[in-house]
Amino acid sequence: MRAYDIIKKKRDGLALSHEEINYFIDGYVKGEIADYQASALCMAIYFRGMDGREITDLTLAMRDSGEVLDVKFGEGLRIDKHSTGGVGDKTSLVIAPIVASLGVTVAKMSGRGLGHTGGTVDKLESIEGFCVEMPVEKFESIVKKTGIAIVGQSATLAPADKKLYALRDVTATVDSIPLIASSIMSKKLAAGDDCIVLDVKTGSGSFMKSVDKSEELARCMVDIGKRAGKKIVALVTDMDVPLGFAIGNSLEVIEAIETLKGNGPKDLVEICLSLSAYMLHLVGKGSVDECKKLAQKAIDDGSALIKFKEMVSAQGGDESWIDDTSLFPKAKFTREVKADEDGYIYSVNAEGYGESSLLLGAGRNTKEDKIDFCAGITLSKKRGDSVKKGDVIATLYTSNPSSLDKAEEKLLASTVISSARPQSNPIVYKVVE
Amino acid sequence: MRAYDIIKKKRDGLALSHEEINYFIDGYVKGEIADYQASALCMAIYFRGMDGREITDLTLAMRDSGEVLDVKFGEGLRIDKHSTGGVGDKTSLVIAPIVASLGVTVAKMSGRGLGHTGGTVDKLESIEGFCVEMPVEKFESIVKKTGIAIVGQSATLAPADKKLYALRDVTATVDSIPLIASSIMSKKLAAGDDCIVLDVKTGSGSFMKSVDKSEELARCMVDIGKRAGKKIVALVTDMDVPLGFAIGNSLEVIEAIETLKGNGPKDLVEICLSLSAYMLHLVGKGSVDECKKLAQKAIDDGSALIKFKEMVSAQGGDESWIDDTSLFPKAKFTREVKADEDGYIYSVNAEGYGESSLLLGAGRNTKEDKIDFCAGITLSKKRGDSVKKGDVIATLYTSNPSSLDKAEEKLLASTVISSARPQSNPIVYKVVE
Repeated sequence: MRAYDIIKKKRDGLALSHEEINYFIDGYVKGEIADYQASALCMAIYFRGMDGREITDLTLAMRDSGEVLDVKFGEGLRIDKHSTGGVGDKTSLVIAPIVASLGVTVAKMSGRGLGHTGGTVDKLESIEGFCVEMPVEKFESIVKKTGIAIVGQSATLAPADKKLYALRDVTATVDSIPLIASSIMSKKLAAGDDCIVLDVKTGSGSFMKSVDKSEELARCMVDIGKRAGKKIVALVTDMDVPLGFAIGNSLEVIEAIETLKGNGPKDLVEICLSLSAYMLHLVGKGSVDECKKLAQKAIDDGSALIKFKEMVSAQGGDESWIDDTSLFPKAKFTREVKADEDGYIYSVNAEGYGESSLLLGAGRNTKEDKIDFCAGITLSKKRGDSVKKGDVIATLYTSNPSSLDKAEEKLLASTVISSARPQSNPIVYKVVE
Repeated sequence: MRAYDIIKKKRDGLALSHEEINYFIDGYVKGEIADYQASALCMAIYFRGMDGREITDLTLAMRDSGEVLDVKFGEGLRIDKHSTGGVGDKTSLVIAPIVASLGVTVAKMSGRGLGHTGGTVDKLESIEGFCVEMPVEKFESIVKKTGIAIVGQSATLAPADKKLYALRDVTATVDSIPLIASSIMSKKLAAGDDCIVLDVKTGSGSFMKSVDKSEELARCMVDIGKRAGKKIVALVTDMDVPLGFAIGNSLEVIEAIETLKGNGPKDLVEICLSLSAYMLHLVGKGSVDECKKLAQKAIDDGSALIKFKEMVSAQGGDESWIDDTSLFPKAKFTREVKADEDGYIYSVNAEGYGESSLLLGAGRNTKEDKIDFCAGITLSKKRGDSVKKGDVIATLYTSNPSSLDKAEEKLLASTVISSARPQSNPIVYKVVE
């Protein structure tokens, strides 16, 4: 078998065999197949695509390039939720305690990644003392005790994906559904959950800008999951505007805590209840509607908040911050951004808001960047709201005052005010199962 | 400017600007742009193509990556002929002396390359003492004296093409018309001829299997040449069966000498006269028909043969071998391959015959391989000839007897004998100007 023939076969539009895919991924991880051959193959896949069997073979080959966790935590099914990422997406912080409070084991491994804000584990680190890096034994013991833990993703999971993703990132081969789907699913399958709920974002703040493309990605990942023997469902959800009102790290944690306290923004509450419902449904807690009611109850009766505090405490965080969110450090510098005309907020480019928050220090440009936990944005107005000239539409937070001008400029450029009132988008577009 | 954006732009089907192409090629030659980015770009070009302006920009960027020769040899226009390569293609050995004998300067640089047999300079080296590697001053002085010289291509011409071709060769990105055309033309333009006649082969022994594809390649190269200010024409010629009866190095030189002596095989004579005619026409020696007659006369009156001998002598070769070709060393081992049934030779897969000659030692698999000059094949029968079972259809020559079985097997597998008589192919399919 030769790497050349595998590239040529895909270039010519033929399906690669199980053996060919394994040979390529194995050789690539070992350094026997060169980067320049792997990038040529990725570009050929970009143009030719892959069928479901091929994508699953690719996913499993990448999963098997590293450790595959199969820790059991008692009798129940383990479940995870994965989001393709968006701006202001703090759903994991709300959903994990909801489902854990209802007796479902949540042993979540989450990435840091690059982006407009940190990932879930970065956000959690904004809680004083919260520890996300620990030996797997400690992770297990916390999960067994509290039924919930969220830690950083082990570097030993799916190393092939890590290597291939870094290559795709510099060769314009990221935007390929087979490659995106296999990348995400290889890590999810390696983490060893029995059930998976995927939150596939769509719109300006997502890397899938259209509902059709998002649905295609969702179907592709659900197909991989099923072929790999998992219970899996995907929700295509709106990311055309930021989720909730907070973008940042501690700002998002505070908004998640408020949501667990019953004071969450409508869109965030709705999506968290929907995702929780499908998670609970998958592990057999009842119909989706019944499960949604269970999730609502877990917020209403405070049990989800208690579970969140248990997790914070078990992972070394200061529980009192949850009761009193004013204990979170505040940004030294703030700026109110004001509407420059009357009208309706017609559109908000979520990606632009994300870039603004990145400028303020909330995210990472390179792996080495340090996150400013209190940096970010809170929105005062969202799409559909009416504004008068001079009204505050958002507030910027940062430790670096020199970033404020550019961040404000970016935010204003990403906001369209119009005399016409925009239609509202659904929160959940599709359920793919 | 970033390599990433250039790859993405081409991936998305947009035309690259002059500046983008120069930036990429320059960066690649300097090692500032990685192989894995260049291979991704080549694959994107494979799928998206390039327009005429882009292809010309790419060609000129590669030409300008190294030395561009602009030696003048007196008043007349310099001309070169280039073939895309085939099995038994010894036309340069016949054509160069024909046109030189008619007063046209031929200062030819020719590649060695990998292939079924050696390249033109390898073939010439089968003449005792013939020297193809010399300082450019000596090359110039020979051309000025005799009006003709054929030497190995300088390594300083179009180094970008050399680097890129090696990469394409291992990433399944060779078969792309923009990349093939720019590769060939970058070297031709760097060699500094005023006029170029291209012999674009088509059929089983060519890398372009269909006439349409060959014509497309021909048009693309002619377009580049014109944009670069050259007088240029391309002939699409048959390479479905080997050219002439000899495949090998000394075997082909002997056949070329016989052709210059007026005893050439019909197909070889026809193609040599056509190519010579267009070369003479381009430099202003008259109409194509008139020039064809001039070429025929140069064979008939022996002036082309005399010119060939002058070249051999000037380049250090033993001229007496030309008068008496029995002086060429003979292969130690030979085998006659016989027809296994009665009928007509219905088809001869030229590539298969080429591979058979490679097995016998006539070509190179890797750059380091040494050529066995007397190895090769002579055909006794060609397409359309009738045979009886047991008739000799070809003779194999080699210094390595262990290669005979496989070479015979390959040759037989590449020969179809049938009761039906095949139609004959034209020798020149198209003239693209």
